[in-house]
Amino acid sequence: MTEPTADIRARAGKIRFVLLDVDGVLTDGRLFLFSDGSEGRTFHVRDGHGIRMGQRAGFHFGLLSGRESRVVADRAEELYITEVHQGILDKPERYAEIRERLGLPDEAMCYVGDDVVDVPVLRRVGLAVAPADAAPEAREAAHWVASQRGGEGVVREVVDLLLRAAGKWQSVTDRYLKAR
Amino acid sequence: MTEPTADIRARAGKIRFVLLDVDGVLTDGRLFLFSDGSEGRTFHVRDGHGIRMGQRAGFHFGLLSGRESRVVADRAEELYITEVHQGILDKPERYAEIRERLGLPDEAMCYVGDDVVDVPVLRRVGLAVAPADAAPEAREAAHWVASQRGGEGVVREVVDLLLRAAGKWQSVTDRYLKAR
Amino acid sequence: MTEPTADIRARAGKIRFVLLDVDGVLTDGRLFLFSDGSEGRTFHVRDGHGIRMGQRAGFHFGLLSGRESRVVADRAEELYITEVHQGILDKPERYAEIRERLGLPDEAMCYVGDDVVDVPVLRRVGLAVAPADAAPEAREAAHWVASQRGGEGVVREVVDLLLRAAGKWQSVTDRYLKAR
Amino acid sequence: MTEPTADIRARAGKIRFVLLDVDGVLTDGRLFLFSDGSEGRTFHVRDGHGIRMGQRAGFHFGLLSGRESRVVADRAEELYITEVHQGILDKPERYAEIRERLGLPDEAMCYVGDDVVDVPVLRRVGLAVAPADAAPEAREAAHWVASQRGGEGVVREVVDLLLRAAGKWQSVTDRYLKAR
Repeated sequence: MTEPTADIRARAGKIRFVLLDVDGVLTDGRLFLFSDGSEGRTFHVRDGHGIRMGQRAGFHFGLLSGRESRVVADRAEELYITEVHQGILDKPERYAEIRERLGLPDEAMCYVGDDVVDVPVLRRVGLAVAPADAAPEAREAAHWVASQRGGEGVVREVVDLLLRAAGKWQSVTDRYLKAR
Repeated sequence: MTEPTADIRARAGKIRFVLLDVDGVLTDGRLFLFSDGSEGRTFHVRDGHGIRMGQRAGFHFGLLSGRESRVVADRAEELYITEVHQGILDKPERYAEIRERLGLPDEAMCYVGDDVVDVPVLRRVGLAVAPADAAPEAREAAHWVASQRGGEGVVREVVDLLLRAAGKWQSVTDRYLKAR
Repeated sequence: MTEPTADIRARAGKIRFVLLDVDGVLTDGRLFLFSDGSEGRTFHVRDGHGIRMGQRAGFHFGLLSGRESRVVADRAEELYITEVHQGILDKPERYAEIRERLGLPDEAMCYVGDDVVDVPVLRRVGLAVAPADAAPEAREAAHWVASQRGGEGVVREVVDLLLRAAGKWQSVTDRYLKAR
Repeated sequence: MTEPTADIRARAGKIRFVLLDVDGVLTDGRLFLFSDGSEGRTFHVRDGHGIRMGQRAGFHFGLLSGRESRVVADRAEELYITEVHQGILDKPERYAEIRERLGLPDEAMCYVGDDVVDVPVLRRVGLAVAPADAAPEAREAAHWVASQRGGEGVVREVVDLLLRAAGKWQSVTDRYLKAR
């Protein structure tokens, strides 16, 4: 468990947009290959629910992946994520484009990444997060190493942090927590 | 391990109907997405066996899921579960409908849920259970946090508790345990 | 780790036939269900290799499953297992039939099972084994609780025990261990 | 954690070619079988990234598997691995052929294997590695038991060792680590 410090909570309080690496963050990094030529990935239902809670609180989400797969497009559509960037070899370049188009400063951007290729983006954003099982370089570059592993709820954990830091946790969860 | 207390056993002794969330309870929360557009989930064989043992002892089972999938319908059919409620956005409302139609008091209802959306139902039922790896809000709202994780036998653990509390464990397992 | 005792090794030394439950023994108990109506299971490559090593040493293997699936038939064929018994509701009855047809005493039979339904057979055989993550009733009925979990190498661990107890470990592994 | 010793680092410094067993090394050893007759395996995205980093630093990679599957051929193609040897019953023989054709001494060869069948090759190469969860015989025959399990990043861990031992870690990762 890595309880967020006051610095992390302060960084979280400024976030508007959450950019997510896919393999190793939204998934556990496993690629399923099948003998009929198809492929697959696993996503976690609690991550999806976290993203929907975050959207309800006004956060926007995007995906930034070095690979390309229909599976990711399908999951993004299901979660109403429109900023879907797949097959991106130069992640920091694409990050800069997204941020400028959105007209947001780095401090308003959160990025979750798990590997060496994610380090440049992790070093730019206001809040850089690595899953508990990320590569050492990503964990080192991150402001916060989450307690959850990739594909097992790390995105939900990030959304919880953002909602609490923004003082929106209560209003978003009230509709659930108040039994009729 | 979280051994059930006397209070939990007393609650369990009044249960007639067991309502189960699907993702994160009957499954480990992972959603398999494939490049041919199909999807999948994993269920545990010991949970299925637990449900059949529970049915033999007179308990009834139902599923209550926010998502909708053929996979869940197939698993339900295999387990002779007829109360299958998928794509339910308002879980407490649907819970109330089921309970009233069955003519059972809240004390006769058990619910197993793993996330914030399950909290209102967890707060209503006579016995509220959360898997070991449930979201903090679900664990807090539950009367009992099981020792098993979702998709790895938590439902079987609940059935064991119910059978013992009802004094039916011996009669149900005798057909297995008495070698000829 | 549960190192086999002298009693376990003595029992292992008399075994000729190894009967295996499938779900929770050759697999981790997970059933994969897909939206196209197909289903799947995972097997471990080291279990398969163990079975082939055992066959080379003269042991025979069989499968005894309460469920029925093409997947199990395919895996059995791949491993040259001809005693494949699926969809068996009365496991002790079928066990007795197999044993009599083979003309072997109970002491020559090993069974690996993980759940309540396996208990009667576990109580009959010369060597009863439960995977590390078996249901409590199976672990209690077994002579030996292996250190490996179902689907993660428990069958290989059993074969290792049998080969060593029969004094055949060296001869079977020599072809691998002696580098040219 | 098994930090590489000076001897391991010295051995690693001489490696030019990395030969990988597939099941239990590039995968976690699980074989997925489906009711439509297809099969599957899981690979880890960080292993793939490690192989590409290694290739960029001038290392060559090959696969040596006792089984045969389209899945492995597909993954090899994706990773630009051309030395793909599947369905190989005699691994040491094939190893010798590969090494001679490449004109490399044993000291320049690294092999990663997880089971008894891999022992003869593990005993020949300059750097023999076993995943953390390998069979006891493979772990014993290896110079180095990695801290990662098969299919969960052990290949990436090996590449990291090789890059550091060759003094190429900095140059390969600089393109990632230097944010613009």
